[in-house]
Parts: sequence; C-alpha cells; structure tokens
Amino acid sequence: MENEQQIRLLVENWASAARAQNYDGVMAFHHPDIVMYDVPPPFQSKGLDAYKKTWQTFFDCPQNNTGIFDILELNITAGNDVAFCFAHMQCASVDNQKPDDYLQFRLTIGFKKIDGQWWFMHEHHSVPGV
Amino acid sequence: MENEQQIRLLVENWASAARAQNYDGVMAFHHPDIVMYDVPPPFQSKGLDAYKKTWQTFFDCPQNNTGIFDILELNITAGNDVAFCFAHMQCASVDNQKPDDYLQFRLTIGFKKIDGQWWFMHEHHSVPGV
Repeated sequence: MENEQQIRLLVENWASAARAQNYDGVMAFHHPDIVMYDVPPPFQSKGLDAYKKTWQTFFDCPQNNTGIFDILELNITAGNDVAFCFAHMQCASVDNQKPDDYLQFRLTIGFKKIDGQWWFMHEHHSVPGV
Repeated sequence: MENEQQIRLLVENWASAARAQNYDGVMAFHHPDIVMYDVPPPFQSKGLDAYKKTWQTFFDCPQNNTGIFDILELNITAGNDVAFCFAHMQCASVDNQKPDDYLQFRLTIGFKKIDGQWWFMHEHHSVPGV
C-alpha cells in the first residue's frame, strides 16, 4: 500500500499544480525521457522541453484559466518499481463553467521507481474521438 | 528482460489477433476488471463484455477490414509484477488504403502479473482531439 499511496500523492500534487498553473509543480518528478500523449496535437511530446510545451498550450489558453482540473475516479496498480494509474478527469473552460459542461477526459500515467523515488515516465490524456 | 519479452509477445499476439479479427485472440489474458479507453465512444468500457463490444465496433465496420493494425514503435517498462507499455500505432480503413493516409493512434497498456501470468488490466487508445 505504501507504493500506491506514494503514487496517489504524486498524482494529487500534480493535479493541484495544474489547477494553480504552476510549471514547477506539473514538471516535478517527470523523467527526462517522459513521453506525453496529450488531448490536443501534437501526436506525441518526447522529453521535458516538449512536455513543458503541452502545459504552455494549456496555461496560455485563457479559457483554461478556471482552476478546475479534477480527478473524479483514480485507479492505481503499483508494484515495487513499476506502477501505472488511470483516471476519469474533468477540466473546465471559460465557455463551460457549468459542471454539466466540463470537459471529461481520460488519463493514464506510467511510473518507474529509481533509487527510491517514483518518476512519471509516460502520460496519456485523451477524449473519445473518431 | 524476461518480463519485457513476455509483455512484447503478449502485445504482438494481441495486435496479430486484431489484424485477423480473432475475438479469442484480442480477449486473451484480459482481466475481468479490464478498463478500456478506446478511440471512439463510449468514454470508457469496464469489464470483459464491454471490452469485447469495442472490438465488435471495430470488426463490424467494413472499413476496418483491411488487416492493417501495426505497431510502429513500442516502449515497455516492466517490473516483476506490474508493467506498462506505450506505442505509436496505425490502422487503415477502406477509404485510406495508402500508407500516408493510415490512421495514426496512440496506445498505452497496463499489465499485472498474477500467479506467474501477465494480464492486460487497462488499455488506452486515442488520437489527438480538441
């Protein structure tokens, strides 16, 4: 359970940083080899610089400045050195201030423990598409 | 490396079954608690019956009957009892028979080893969206 609790705390802190538009917080414990599949293009973002740009895209859009980035349901599977989680998430834009209109999205994260510290290795955010 | 090779074989066999429209093959080693986030709606599919329906959606669409379901790049992180992988994938519809027109999609899978056997616990398929 200790590993699962560590993952839960990492994800909650990360989501909290997303609400606060805190770059250091959303980047924390993200591995240099992070590969991000985000909701908007590009298809994938490899490495920390590319990962940071996905948050610039999010934070620079005034419509996202609502502070709403909620974890509605979080499922964690944690081993001793590898873990993953998936979650039903929601965020809100200025145009969608009513909870019924919030954007619902899916999130999967892969983690690896290196020298006793969990690191985000992979994130996959999406909405149903074609 | 043995765990990584086991995961690679599972994913390759699963993709091969997708090409062959083989239900038993795409369902193999999928845990009863599987949660699927697919490219088309619904938002999520929980359990084996719901997971199978996502393949019915795919196989029943004549446009998907092309036998093309390719793993272009596969990255695996495997521990002793938990693993995840992510991949750049492509498939083709009847309307997109030229390789340049193939649908590019992102895939993430979470695995858990139970009594010595790896199981698919979670799949996340998507294309970039809004």
